[in-house]
Amino acid sequence: MQPLVMNERPPVLWLTGLSGAGKSTLANQLKARFNAFGQMAVVLDGDELRHGVCRDLGFSALDRAENIRRAGEVARLFRDTGVWVVVALISPFAQNRAAVREMIGEGFVEVFVDTPLAVCERRDPKGLYARCRQGDLALLTGISSPYESPRTPDVHLDGAVGQGVDQHVDQVLDFLRARGDWRH
Amino acid sequence: MQPLVMNERPPVLWLTGLSGAGKSTLANQLKARFNAFGQMAVVLDGDELRHGVCRDLGFSALDRAENIRRAGEVARLFRDTGVWVVVALISPFAQNRAAVREMIGEGFVEVFVDTPLAVCERRDPKGLYARCRQGDLALLTGISSPYESPRTPDVHLDGAVGQGVDQHVDQVLDFLRARGDWRH
Repeated sequence: MQPLVMNERPPVLWLTGLSGAGKSTLANQLKARFNAFGQMAVVLDGDELRHGVCRDLGFSALDRAENIRRAGEVARLFRDTGVWVVVALISPFAQNRAAVREMIGEGFVEVFVDTPLAVCERRDPKGLYARCRQGDLALLTGISSPYESPRTPDVHLDGAVGQGVDQHVDQVLDFLRARGDWRH
Repeated sequence: MQPLVMNERPPVLWLTGLSGAGKSTLANQLKARFNAFGQMAVVLDGDELRHGVCRDLGFSALDRAENIRRAGEVARLFRDTGVWVVVALISPFAQNRAAVREMIGEGFVEVFVDTPLAVCERRDPKGLYARCRQGDLALLTGISSPYESPRTPDVHLDGAVGQGVDQHVDQVLDFLRARGDWRH
């Protein structure tokens, strides 16, 4: 095996958006694309992190902040190892996203998966919207907890019906090409 | 760049031993050796984790357990990404090490860096032993908090004076060769 060619500063793609917006699907597609060209990559998925590194945390504003902080710290460890990182995490509060952008530094790419609430609720892949409407779930972003939309995301993806994940992958890769991170 | 050749199940080397035993030095040497042959690797160092993912934790038995749990979760994320992992963490309690072994599964390699307390205290690279003896530090493993030596570590390194880090690296690589993980 050859010594690896690596970016000096691999990107950390931070996918933010509502539950059901399509963050995890997009993240896994991006990882597959990177891997296909020999670039190691990891998806840090909010749901999975909550079963692992963040298992002790709940959904209060404080715990959400800590959740995002830890995701950022893990992302940084991967980035420093030369692994490209795709984080898929609702990350509803602008302040927390700003903190993690500062922590990660120049490699940070904020990707807003901007899918309308009505679309997310219709998909409801985990049944969370139904549970919240029925009163079984107290805090759900977009319903009973705010989502602060990014004002100046690095990449703004239109998640309305008709836009497919392939288009979103292309849009992210275009951004990375323009930055010189992606040459394929 | 070529698609990467990767182990199905990269090893997670878990270096346990007293403060000053030489865990970090050995971990960095192992990483350098792996990298030299094109194998991506990461060192998860206890001190660094405490400034990052584990910044909210102290040194009580409960916090130490959580510290080790999180280190194990991060190790698993790297392992699942195909990155070799070297953890350098005092991890004084057998119960916590057993838990992390169970979590990681078959790739887990417990490496006991068995350096006598007197040698560690003479080195005292962080001045912790001096601080503890002077009463400035309440809990220090080996002095005021127990270290439970592994009874059946996968690799047992003699850290007495006269043994150099190169010998320890060779001993770990021999173990990995015997398992079929390392072919150089």
